[in-house]
Amino acid sequence: MTFRLAFLIDPIPADDPRTDFAGTISPIDPDAPALSVSDLSSNRGDGIFESIAVVDGHPQETGAHLQRLAHSARLSDLPEPHTAQLRAAVEAAAAQCPPGECTIRLLLSRGVQHGGPGQGIHGPTIWLTAAQAPDNTAARENGIKVVTLDRGYDSGAAARAPWLLLGAKTLSYAVNMAALREARRRGADDAIFVTSDGYVLEAPTATLILRRGDTFLTPEPTGGLLQGTTQLSAFDWLEENGHPTGYEHIPTAALYDADAAWLVSSTRLAAALTHVDGRELPVDRDLTAALNAYLLSPRD
Amino acid sequence: MTFRLAFLIDPIPADDPRTDFAGTISPIDPDAPALSVSDLSSNRGDGIFESIAVVDGHPQETGAHLQRLAHSARLSDLPEPHTAQLRAAVEAAAAQCPPGECTIRLLLSRGVQHGGPGQGIHGPTIWLTAAQAPDNTAARENGIKVVTLDRGYDSGAAARAPWLLLGAKTLSYAVNMAALREARRRGADDAIFVTSDGYVLEAPTATLILRRGDTFLTPEPTGGLLQGTTQLSAFDWLEENGHPTGYEHIPTAALYDADAAWLVSSTRLAAALTHVDGRELPVDRDLTAALNAYLLSPRD
Repeated sequence: MTFRLAFLIDPIPADDPRTDFAGTISPIDPDAPALSVSDLSSNRGDGIFESIAVVDGHPQETGAHLQRLAHSARLSDLPEPHTAQLRAAVEAAAAQCPPGECTIRLLLSRGVQHGGPGQGIHGPTIWLTAAQAPDNTAARENGIKVVTLDRGYDSGAAARAPWLLLGAKTLSYAVNMAALREARRRGADDAIFVTSDGYVLEAPTATLILRRGDTFLTPEPTGGLLQGTTQLSAFDWLEENGHPTGYEHIPTAALYDADAAWLVSSTRLAAALTHVDGRELPVDRDLTAALNAYLLSPRD
Repeated sequence: MTFRLAFLIDPIPADDPRTDFAGTISPIDPDAPALSVSDLSSNRGDGIFESIAVVDGHPQETGAHLQRLAHSARLSDLPEPHTAQLRAAVEAAAAQCPPGECTIRLLLSRGVQHGGPGQGIHGPTIWLTAAQAPDNTAARENGIKVVTLDRGYDSGAAARAPWLLLGAKTLSYAVNMAALREARRRGADDAIFVTSDGYVLEAPTATLILRRGDTFLTPEPTGGLLQGTTQLSAFDWLEENGHPTGYEHIPTAALYDADAAWLVSSTRLAAALTHVDGRELPVDRDLTAALNAYLLSPRD
């Protein structure tokens, strides 16, 4: 039986001055009924989330994740979350995690809509789950095969149409899940979304880093994709180790010609790309191992 | 206190031969905890739905809605629903609705994922809610103002990239909800999505019909938008009344020059457009009233 837990979190205003949140964080059975069928998360994917890795009881990059959650809330017209309260919930969950790796998911839905469209919304609804992470050793050590998939949007869509919520990590992930199924149908492990005008975006649940000579690049996070928390950490480590890093608009063709590439995410960490659309990429096993060792060290 | 109810529906295989479904449909409190926090509907908007109007106890166009649900399931790699079981649930809910108008929502999620990504999924989860409909008299009689909003996709996206799930009615509706908020910020009642290359699609929760001379047109349902069940009924009625109907790729500019236009949907029914992006459109109050009278009559 693997470890799991869940908390329901009573929403409090972002400016609530209290510093003890114990009374607002309630353990619940992760398998028991907990959300009403009128919650807008389950009805419309109307909410936001973060996935936070826990390594030996330490939640990784909590600050960056809570910052991104607040950013997603602003983009989605959701109430600003109470960062200290959510941090307390994350820390309480992490403290219960067994040694090794776990994943905490923090979710905020717009709330419960009684009586259908046009009626009042009571919200938000906030909850957290924690579970032992799957074993990602194979992806970290041997790398993964990816295929590129058209995200349908051109490079200008995010700036032109903020209602597309392209920089927000929303609960509306049906397309991300469909892309992963399509990748598996094509014999790959993961997908990389590209724009309809031929630029690289991100994976459905990970950020791309590629190497060109000694420089490490990730697609411009302005518009169209999420700023990756693990990618930010990876860039810190790369810079410390003397590797220049940068953000660029990266044409899809540049991915095929990369000197190496990785998908990085909070749970799987760094997975080297062995193949992109069936073309082999060079793999640097030593650098990947060193990067993953860093990503497994405690970081705030 | 307005009327509401909810049912949890035990999933059975699509080819299950039974004809009595009473034991598989359980009334639940629509406000009580019912779904676990591990359900993929609330975690990833990973599921599909239909909204069915009930008029004086009669569920409207149930067959067309169940057909579209099955279509959405196929596009989303979800198990085929048992149509007769879901019809029985819809009829049982409709029979409890008070006189007047109600809305039934039928939802199917991929199920519950224990232990996070990569672990097994137990599903699907199926539920239904019914609630008294809001009063839509003003929209039906006086019409609505709309703004056009870029959906970010070009006309070819749906055919090129089926993983975008553009013809499926999924639970990932965060963008649809954000578009409605943007419309209200601009002083309008609703939005009409257009492609990035300038063609009309649909509203976030309704289908467009426009009139050019004596012909009634709706955007081609191939790719990029849902086939509207209410629009199909409206076309039947228009044809019976001697008005030719058709499907076309409609440039956004043609919307401004329309001789009249409506958004049609299962609950609000036909709402004439009085303004598109601030430009006035001709309104035919008599035709709108006659169409709504038809849409309020019992239809299967």
